[in-house]
Amino acid sequence: MRIGWIGTGLMGEPMVARLVAAGHQVSVHNRTRARAEPSLALGAGWAGSIAAAARDRDVVITMLPFPADVEAAYLGPDGILANASPGTVAVDMSTSSPALARRLADFTGGSVLDAPVSGGPAGARSGALSIFVGGAADAFERVRPVFEVLGSTVVHHGPAGAGQAAKLVNQALVANLTLGICEAYAVAEAAGLDPALVHESVRVGVAGSPLLDFAWSRLSDGDLEPGFKVAHLAKDLALALDEVGDTRRLPGTSLVRELCQAVADTLGGDRGTQALITQTQPTVPSEGQR
Amino acid sequence: MRIGWIGTGLMGEPMVARLVAAGHQVSVHNRTRARAEPSLALGAGWAGSIAAAARDRDVVITMLPFPADVEAAYLGPDGILANASPGTVAVDMSTSSPALARRLADFTGGSVLDAPVSGGPAGARSGALSIFVGGAADAFERVRPVFEVLGSTVVHHGPAGAGQAAKLVNQALVANLTLGICEAYAVAEAAGLDPALVHESVRVGVAGSPLLDFAWSRLSDGDLEPGFKVAHLAKDLALALDEVGDTRRLPGTSLVRELCQAVADTLGGDRGTQALITQTQPTVPSEGQR
Repeated sequence: MRIGWIGTGLMGEPMVARLVAAGHQVSVHNRTRARAEPSLALGAGWAGSIAAAARDRDVVITMLPFPADVEAAYLGPDGILANASPGTVAVDMSTSSPALARRLADFTGGSVLDAPVSGGPAGARSGALSIFVGGAADAFERVRPVFEVLGSTVVHHGPAGAGQAAKLVNQALVANLTLGICEAYAVAEAAGLDPALVHESVRVGVAGSPLLDFAWSRLSDGDLEPGFKVAHLAKDLALALDEVGDTRRLPGTSLVRELCQAVADTLGGDRGTQALITQTQPTVPSEGQR
Repeated sequence: MRIGWIGTGLMGEPMVARLVAAGHQVSVHNRTRARAEPSLALGAGWAGSIAAAARDRDVVITMLPFPADVEAAYLGPDGILANASPGTVAVDMSTSSPALARRLADFTGGSVLDAPVSGGPAGARSGALSIFVGGAADAFERVRPVFEVLGSTVVHHGPAGAGQAAKLVNQALVANLTLGICEAYAVAEAAGLDPALVHESVRVGVAGSPLLDFAWSRLSDGDLEPGFKVAHLAKDLALALDEVGDTRRLPGTSLVRELCQAVADTLGGDRGTQALITQTQPTVPSEGQR
């Protein structure tokens, strides 16, 4: 298929690599061209603008950091909706707002899908992503072959917005688990235990998970580089809290959002979420408290 | 081996069943005899007191709810230490205080091990527990054949107390994950998603875990019966917070402890930890706030 791809970051880059390898004709656009070079080296074409990436394509896919980026990419005279050919299906694979997904689908009579993913850069490279799809069933069927190159679990959750909502469910889970991993690591350190032995015991228990293995290893190495950025988790959690509004209390999710914000404020938003470990350090008492 | 077993609750009962099936000669004692009947029906003998369970045994094992129960079982004229034969190794498999474990080991010159477990009643039945051992290496080697009937992962974490400390690491992880599962479920409900479809997507992601599968299924059934009791999780988290003292902040763990206490206060401490879902309901505003 002729695919336009907008956004070649931590996730977009390995996803484009899979589509190119599968024989699709992919044109990429990225705000910073240098970040697209690895995709171009693999055989993707360069599109000089969002409009150019959207024209004459079977499918246009966005993989962008924030809902404001998604909104800007789709709307306005230079955006996807004004430039895509009739019959093109657009797919937002960013984790974004369910309400925005519904708005974009409504505009276009159902030719925009929401399809955020879970599985991280490793899952993107191996084609093992979990893809959470919302939107019109006929558009979903047309894009399904693309999804199947990228993910091993592709689930259609319902109408537009349902994919985003299902992804936010995942993020609430991931957020609390990440904090749990960091606090568990802090307990192990405080007790003077060997982190490798503790990992051996804990990973086979009921809370063993791929995220535990990934984050524990990074923590053991003192490595705060992202798999997944704290600024992005903070954004996802704000979206989850918006989605439930005042129909539910999410005290853990609210806490992790605040702690991610604290990490972003002190260390920068592009640290990995395992940097929540820094929030387990006791606060230095102020002069007055001593 | 001749094994004395004290405490035939949710975990103790299936563990005793495995030891009897493996050909060990097991005498059980439980405060409420009726709770020991299933063990007796399988061929365990009845010990009328803790002292009787401790006498003339190669190994004496305790599996009790709270550190106060453990302390009472070991100390005093009717306790294990006063009645066990020289050469008996006592093993506390309860999740209890590292400080108490060190105290008991010190009393006895190293013939008490701490060996709490993870894996729940299902892991206990199938012999797939993770066993966190602390204490003297020679005592560990003598009890190892018993551990290998009960668990598939047996790790010696260090001197007395290290097994308990490692288990508390696991509990901090489990606690935050459990809250995350409940809040994720609440987001799915609030967004009107199909919980079974959401589970299909989320379980293959980075946060997929045996606990997710177990708790999501219970939540879908509206079933708040324990796998693991909120009162016990609240106790474990208090121990974890004690263990780190003021050397670390554990905001997530502290939060889950409070929420477990709130569930215990309103619904009872013997509800399963998935009853944390009730804490996602919005508070009914009081008259004054309306």
